[in-house]
Amino acid sequence: MKVQNELQLLLNNKNIQYGNRGTNLENDINQSNKYYIDHKIAYIYKKPTPIKINKVDYPSKHNKVSKIVIREAYFDSPSTTDYNGIYKGKYIDFEAKETKNKTAFSLDNIHKHQLNHLKNITECGGIGFLIVRFSSQQKNFLLLAKDLFSFLENTDRKSIPLQYFEEKAYLIEESYLPRLPYLKIIDKIMEVS
Amino acid sequence: MKVQNELQLLLNNKNIQYGNRGTNLENDINQSNKYYIDHKIAYIYKKPTPIKINKVDYPSKHNKVSKIVIREAYFDSPSTTDYNGIYKGKYIDFEAKETKNKTAFSLDNIHKHQLNHLKNITECGGIGFLIVRFSSQQKNFLLLAKDLFSFLENTDRKSIPLQYFEEKAYLIEESYLPRLPYLKIIDKIMEVS
Repeated sequence: MKVQNELQLLLNNKNIQYGNRGTNLENDINQSNKYYIDHKIAYIYKKPTPIKINKVDYPSKHNKVSKIVIREAYFDSPSTTDYNGIYKGKYIDFEAKETKNKTAFSLDNIHKHQLNHLKNITECGGIGFLIVRFSSQQKNFLLLAKDLFSFLENTDRKSIPLQYFEEKAYLIEESYLPRLPYLKIIDKIMEVS
Repeated sequence: MKVQNELQLLLNNKNIQYGNRGTNLENDINQSNKYYIDHKIAYIYKKPTPIKINKVDYPSKHNKVSKIVIREAYFDSPSTTDYNGIYKGKYIDFEAKETKNKTAFSLDNIHKHQLNHLKNITECGGIGFLIVRFSSQQKNFLLLAKDLFSFLENTDRKSIPLQYFEEKAYLIEESYLPRLPYLKIIDKIMEVS
């Protein structure tokens, strides 16, 4: 499971680096964020993937052009979420995850440090949430951190049932531009609060 | 110069990973941020260093424990700043740099993407700035992004003179806890604006 997550990370990383257009959730979010930035609607961006470096080769004295080469490194477990930024002056912070499971979202997808991060964000007045795609149904949900925490406090379950998303989360309707207009949901939430 | 920056990055990275206590600017900021988090004053954290991955080794099918090993990677030029977070509901974003130069801060220290990032932050209502330490004088300055941009717009110089910092930036007085109480300056700025 862990290796699969890392493979996915790597794959996503490659998609971005070489400019391949996948259709996965991360690409949809990146395209949407680009739209938001280009239209000066919001400034939300992806953080780098954390890497733990073990070994490096230094460039030789005689070769001023060559760079430091990292020769052994590992994907580190993330201590924060993938995305953050500003919308209408508010601090926005979220993690995006895709699941093939048809009935539930496994909590293995979210690291303990990430939960702690979302808690800190919320306590300091930021807007923290998850975007979860159930790919079998092609449904995208925005689950506010407060609703995530109220689930975690009331249960020992290791996954969040789809039904909980249907009841508590907001459905993000896909569109052409931006592909995933999740800030529409944030507008609704700001109106209410 | 570039290699030196990368070496510094690497060194900082190592300091954090192995828990060594250096006395450099990054350590002072990390200690201060930890203090702010522990005392629920602010939540400001460091982003991972961006890495460009070229080659990886996948774990063999028969060995479920081993992880993906990155075998060739490089330090990527940063597209954002090092630190961001929330203070009093406001989005905070900054880059921290140390210079040994006694009279000026070279603009080579700041990448074009980072300038663009600070511009986006400021336009969206966030508080963006640089913290620059002139280590020969052991002086730490907080220079607001707006004052950085007004310098850049009015000159072709490749460095910002110390004198400009003395005139336009805020001096951060060092203390014991937190070592670098830069949020005191942000308080002042919030009062005025």
